[in-house]
Amino acid sequence: MPDPEQPLWTLRLDRREVDAAEERADPQALLAGVRFAIKDNIDLAGHPTTAACPALADTSAKSSATAVRRLVESGAIPVGKTNMDQFATGLVGTRSPYGACHSVASPAHISGGSSSGSAIAVAAGHVPLALGTDTAGSGRVPAAFNGIVGVKPTRGLISAAGVLPACAGLDCVTTLTRTVAAARPALAAMVAFDAEDPWSRPAPVLPPNGVAARMRVVGVPDAPLDLDPAHRQAWEAALDRLRGVAAHVTPVDITPFLQAARLLYEGPWIASRYAAFGHLLEPDGPHLDPVVRGIVLRGRNVAGPDVFAGLERLAQLRRAAEAVWPDVDALLLPVTPGHPRLADVAVDPLGVNARLGQYTAFVNLLDLCAVAVPAAARADGLPFGVQFIAPAFADRPLLDLAALWCGEPVPAPSIAPGSTLLAVVGAHLSGLPLNHELVRLGARLEYRARTGPGYRLYRLPGPGLPRPGLVRSGDGPAEGIAVEVWRLPYQALGTVLDTVPEPLALGRVELDDGTTVVGFLASEHGVRGATDITATGGWRAAIA
Amino acid sequence: MPDPEQPLWTLRLDRREVDAAEERADPQALLAGVRFAIKDNIDLAGHPTTAACPALADTSAKSSATAVRRLVESGAIPVGKTNMDQFATGLVGTRSPYGACHSVASPAHISGGSSSGSAIAVAAGHVPLALGTDTAGSGRVPAAFNGIVGVKPTRGLISAAGVLPACAGLDCVTTLTRTVAAARPALAAMVAFDAEDPWSRPAPVLPPNGVAARMRVVGVPDAPLDLDPAHRQAWEAALDRLRGVAAHVTPVDITPFLQAARLLYEGPWIASRYAAFGHLLEPDGPHLDPVVRGIVLRGRNVAGPDVFAGLERLAQLRRAAEAVWPDVDALLLPVTPGHPRLADVAVDPLGVNARLGQYTAFVNLLDLCAVAVPAAARADGLPFGVQFIAPAFADRPLLDLAALWCGEPVPAPSIAPGSTLLAVVGAHLSGLPLNHELVRLGARLEYRARTGPGYRLYRLPGPGLPRPGLVRSGDGPAEGIAVEVWRLPYQALGTVLDTVPEPLALGRVELDDGTTVVGFLASEHGVRGATDITATGGWRAAIA
Repeated sequence: MPDPEQPLWTLRLDRREVDAAEERADPQALLAGVRFAIKDNIDLAGHPTTAACPALADTSAKSSATAVRRLVESGAIPVGKTNMDQFATGLVGTRSPYGACHSVASPAHISGGSSSGSAIAVAAGHVPLALGTDTAGSGRVPAAFNGIVGVKPTRGLISAAGVLPACAGLDCVTTLTRTVAAARPALAAMVAFDAEDPWSRPAPVLPPNGVAARMRVVGVPDAPLDLDPAHRQAWEAALDRLRGVAAHVTPVDITPFLQAARLLYEGPWIASRYAAFGHLLEPDGPHLDPVVRGIVLRGRNVAGPDVFAGLERLAQLRRAAEAVWPDVDALLLPVTPGHPRLADVAVDPLGVNARLGQYTAFVNLLDLCAVAVPAAARADGLPFGVQFIAPAFADRPLLDLAALWCGEPVPAPSIAPGSTLLAVVGAHLSGLPLNHELVRLGARLEYRARTGPGYRLYRLPGPGLPRPGLVRSGDGPAEGIAVEVWRLPYQALGTVLDTVPEPLALGRVELDDGTTVVGFLASEHGVRGATDITATGGWRAAIA
Repeated sequence: MPDPEQPLWTLRLDRREVDAAEERADPQALLAGVRFAIKDNIDLAGHPTTAACPALADTSAKSSATAVRRLVESGAIPVGKTNMDQFATGLVGTRSPYGACHSVASPAHISGGSSSGSAIAVAAGHVPLALGTDTAGSGRVPAAFNGIVGVKPTRGLISAAGVLPACAGLDCVTTLTRTVAAARPALAAMVAFDAEDPWSRPAPVLPPNGVAARMRVVGVPDAPLDLDPAHRQAWEAALDRLRGVAAHVTPVDITPFLQAARLLYEGPWIASRYAAFGHLLEPDGPHLDPVVRGIVLRGRNVAGPDVFAGLERLAQLRRAAEAVWPDVDALLLPVTPGHPRLADVAVDPLGVNARLGQYTAFVNLLDLCAVAVPAAARADGLPFGVQFIAPAFADRPLLDLAALWCGEPVPAPSIAPGSTLLAVVGAHLSGLPLNHELVRLGARLEYRARTGPGYRLYRLPGPGLPRPGLVRSGDGPAEGIAVEVWRLPYQALGTVLDTVPEPLALGRVELDDGTTVVGFLASEHGVRGATDITATGGWRAAIA
């Protein structure tokens, strides 16, 4: 039951001020008249930014954060600042002198945090859009606990200028909305390079190599997860639903992801919070949340060499984790392992919080983007949220995948005129030795796929670069052979054809969805004496 | 006078072993029979890696560093391991229990370091190629002090697997050669992504946006540098020579670069060295250089929050420094402010070393690449080195610029067939709002240029995106207007032409070198009433 009395606001703007802003707004603007709430660690000009620390309420921000300014310039209208775990340190929503929040679905269960008030403001219908922040899961956990959509874009795409830092360089501004569609124009308005934020990064003009325009292959953990029973049941149902959304569901090893999450909590990063706002923690007083203060003051004692050792360890884990991306477009994970009660948090504030973050906390450290979306509710009626996760700068296709999950319309991709699709199966795959030839010819990865049944794969003999041969023998496995489908300008097709050596040819290849595209094929004659590697399922696995 | 007796080797391979390797080498290989020396912080299989710490001489490396292995696989032949400032901590070449090195040009002057022995091995003619490492200048300073070429590639292009770290993530393997041409095949052999090195980065298939295929515009400091008198005179001569090499020499503010260099020495990065090899510094003994030990043990006391504060400060300086790159292709700087004597170092080992690094130490922190090349010798006959510096992944055009400086042949660029050059002057410039249209059409930045004399620039009135108009009025300034010349596939030209609004047109534009290319022009009629912004020199300056 939504509870209008829960402490979701730290500040509400005067209703007349909001109405006047609405009258002034350009009705043609992208976000004309869209009212939005702002997590109270993000500046709104003329109002204080407390980060849930009442001692900061006496000073007003001179100017709005870049993200807020860009929303307002697009016609959106701020209505208030929202409660949060103090200094964005927490995933529970209870660590605030302004009061603890709870899930809109249950007064006994936590709202999640740190963007608690923003999630509730959207879930309870006060506003269609709210801004949160996410360093370790703060934008996704409260979305999951309140049944809404939380978008954690790639680090640096939305300026953090005017946001009180938690871990500078890891903090991301996020959106909280009821649909993926509602997040899109807000993201479009906010995403922009900002020289005022030293961690801002321009979106690349072309997507990074390996990021497909359309995501069809989703990875899921290849081992059991730590999940509460009610959560586990909901997760199994989500996996069933995934098979109706993704063309292929691929088990992957997520160990290095989980190790990176532990590194954030157990490693030296707490010193980053101390560096950012440690000066606000002395002297102690009722304006400070004792749990937050206790955690962050520990950061003072982290040793400098241990920070560098942590950065080195993180680089190793990033290297290990990125091994999954050639095989899958995105990962699906639950947002949290369970949904604690407020009473659980009171008993063990640190342990409950740390366990909550195990599936979210690695995302920014590993430079990934993520979208939390509602799945079917748990048996006890509590919301259950899952998240799609992808590499940096895969935000647009990831939003499309999330929309597909939610049953929302997916915008048609803009397709270059004068282009054709080409299925590649060997050294032209992303990251393999001939891939750069495709990229130089202006080709882009459209999607990952498998062939239809009836194809076999061979390792061709001969000197030079090892190459596979794909043959339609009629007796191949039902699950097909892994391919990538690239979109290639017409005039580049001739260049590719010029370089196709015997016994390869360009012909028609049938894909898993029954369509056929141009692709690399070998003649049956040409693979006589070659090694049959069909059982590997694809060239990348064969050479691994 | 070269002194064959100076302690440049920590280990020489058996001559018969070397001769046998030469006999085994494939004569068709890229580096067939090229003998090379290896700085002794880089593993060579079967031999110890001492990093100039004799206590490490008892253990042999099981396998070679990836960089060494790749050279050997390309036919090159290792001949020995070279002396260095211990643990690559120093720019002087004197901090070694194996003895202090000196410049090949003067027994009284330091060799520079930390890659001292490698530089001397090349300069004295023992080998045509040696490997060094460079974290703060260790690959460039000894090149400058011995009159040779030192290439410090973009971080992560050459694997650091098998290199004893100084500051993990900042360390780069470098080449030392007598010519730029000699470095090219060695770099070609070594540059490759290596999953064994967590800091390895694949070279992008296409150069980053803003990196020109041909570098013609070189930035120089807009304020006096800290230089010894003999160095200052040589630097003035180098600036004169630059005007014969670069098409345009542009003064730029290098303050943030110099601040980043100070940050490396005065900030928390010393804790990175402590994290990497601090365990080797206890107990003390004659195997440890007392200066190195004293410096690095200080890293133990760096506070964790100060490391994060340093990373934040670095991000700010990187943001400030990158402001120069839209205006220049590369920077020219001296490698060092002077050339100390060994006696100077003995008197003030810390002060002399810190001053030496002020023009080199920022390069890796700011993610830049650099090539140190010999300039004309100083009046006293000592070698004088300068360095060209460019953004990450600009290595190839930077090498071409260095070759031009050295009077070496520059390889002809590979030009896409069916393409044309297009001079852009406004919103199509790198990083400006319409630039992404060019990139999406497959265009690449060929070079920065200025128009010939006789052109004027106007700010066109009207709604929408602000745009300039370039007009050949006949009375424009001699120095022309800043343009970028992009190479565009023929079939994209029509798409561009379709989007050219009144009063703009595509016509012929004369450039500073007397050539003419297709470019954006406005009609004289079209700029009536527009603001004349010719005095700004170009659109980017006009909107800054």
